[in-house]
Amino acid sequence: MSTPLFPRIAIIGFGLIGSSLGRAIRQHGLAGALVAIDRDQAARNEIAALGLADEITGDLAAGVAGADLVVLATPVSTYAEIGRTIAPALKPGAIVSDVGSVKRLVLNDLAPVLPSHIHLIPGHPIAGTEKSGPGAGFATLFEGRWCILTPDPATDRAAVDQVNALWHAIGSDVVEMDADHHDKVLAITSHLPHLIAYTIVGTAVDLEEDIKSEVVKFSASGFRDFTRIAASDPTMWRDIFLNNREAVLEMLQRLTEDLFALQRAIRWGEGDFLHERFTRARAIRRSVIEAKQA
Amino acid sequence: MSTPLFPRIAIIGFGLIGSSLGRAIRQHGLAGALVAIDRDQAARNEIAALGLADEITGDLAAGVAGADLVVLATPVSTYAEIGRTIAPALKPGAIVSDVGSVKRLVLNDLAPVLPSHIHLIPGHPIAGTEKSGPGAGFATLFEGRWCILTPDPATDRAAVDQVNALWHAIGSDVVEMDADHHDKVLAITSHLPHLIAYTIVGTAVDLEEDIKSEVVKFSASGFRDFTRIAASDPTMWRDIFLNNREAVLEMLQRLTEDLFALQRAIRWGEGDFLHERFTRARAIRRSVIEAKQA
Repeated sequence: MSTPLFPRIAIIGFGLIGSSLGRAIRQHGLAGALVAIDRDQAARNEIAALGLADEITGDLAAGVAGADLVVLATPVSTYAEIGRTIAPALKPGAIVSDVGSVKRLVLNDLAPVLPSHIHLIPGHPIAGTEKSGPGAGFATLFEGRWCILTPDPATDRAAVDQVNALWHAIGSDVVEMDADHHDKVLAITSHLPHLIAYTIVGTAVDLEEDIKSEVVKFSASGFRDFTRIAASDPTMWRDIFLNNREAVLEMLQRLTEDLFALQRAIRWGEGDFLHERFTRARAIRRSVIEAKQA
Repeated sequence: MSTPLFPRIAIIGFGLIGSSLGRAIRQHGLAGALVAIDRDQAARNEIAALGLADEITGDLAAGVAGADLVVLATPVSTYAEIGRTIAPALKPGAIVSDVGSVKRLVLNDLAPVLPSHIHLIPGHPIAGTEKSGPGAGFATLFEGRWCILTPDPATDRAAVDQVNALWHAIGSDVVEMDADHHDKVLAITSHLPHLIAYTIVGTAVDLEEDIKSEVVKFSASGFRDFTRIAASDPTMWRDIFLNNREAVLEMLQRLTEDLFALQRAIRWGEGDFLHERFTRARAIRRSVIEAKQA
């Protein structure tokens, strides 16, 4: 039997992403032992029932002790406090990583509270579903998907390569970029679409009762896709918007201007303008299909 | 062999919806003869190559002659002109229907130009994909989906029942409603989601080149769902927005207010407000799943 990539891996937060990562790590034999850390008793019961980890604990410090790799898979607002809690228990030379959707915050909130002997390699797998919890995860979630790593340039290269190798082993394509650039790209590809989906679904929620039931009934005409996106975890998304404020607000400003231009064209019956804008938007779909991201 | 529901059916516009309807009609043996009418030569060649109809023509008047049911499946901006062209050729007592996404317009544009001896039964199947053209259609497109009929209350009941029976036979659940009510419901379930998708994809198109390629690369994080919606036919959607102006603008106004409220909450770090709004939006997803529209 080949030596696993990491003798001991601890994952903090065993929800959709954390449990999928755990499943993938086990399926590919990448850890000698896998520790699932979750402060929620119901989640721990579910992890135990599903047999997803070698050890299960709600005690952060005990869970990370001796781990060669610790991955945070909790809402990003918890990072600073979790970092302070696990700092004294971390094994010298351990790697700390995460799967959060905003990355500047990791360098701001998590890096300062960790001991200097550890290697911090922030990560973000571009994968997920609208479901939540340990039962929602699956081992193939990351296959054929991108994983973005945003380490500080001064980070130990061997440690970065090891995290890279882990994601590669579970089927992801790994790319490294600057944390701020990541946050800007994700503001438009992910954060803005989710904000818009939450908005439009919220607008529908506020409609009069009689029309609201019909909105659900006839949702197959476009609305249902937004309800799927808007079914994502509210706490996770609150944290993302609050921690990528500037990039989201800038993209939102652009979007609002574009929306007003279309609104004006509808009001004044400017069909050519609408047609031209819609045709341009359509072309992007082809690029997405060509990039095998459809 | 049982008698088909209609001896002769003519479909004008054999794109995604028209050709899917044609396929379904043939699969269920609902027409003695099926006539495909399309003014585009390339489309007619494709219809012929795929063997989708008993007769194929680009001549509207010749195509509808003798038909018991004529279905318009062209962009709604063509209705008035098509109506005038086919009016003299329509068989006395024939039924004229359509599959357009706005319904008040049918009563405004099409009804006045048709002879009084025909029965006009406007229809709208809540089904589709982002693809276009005769090759994109398939016979099961309408199975398990709603079809909304919006006949004037004075319309001959037997004619309405016959169109109802056609949609029912190809697997749709049929519901009748007032044309204005239809346009209001669809403004929020379909028109607004498409407008927003076109907008956000358009905003991305305008980004600097370097970030644009990354938007495509990392589109799996939410953006790709919008590119799929924004890949729909630009002409069809231009017509929809121009012909459901008031309802779309009203819903857009509500959406904009809600978007500004979220924007303000992000700017001022009001996490509780965001969390509450996101949680409300999430609940609608459950209703959509319960209504079997997911």
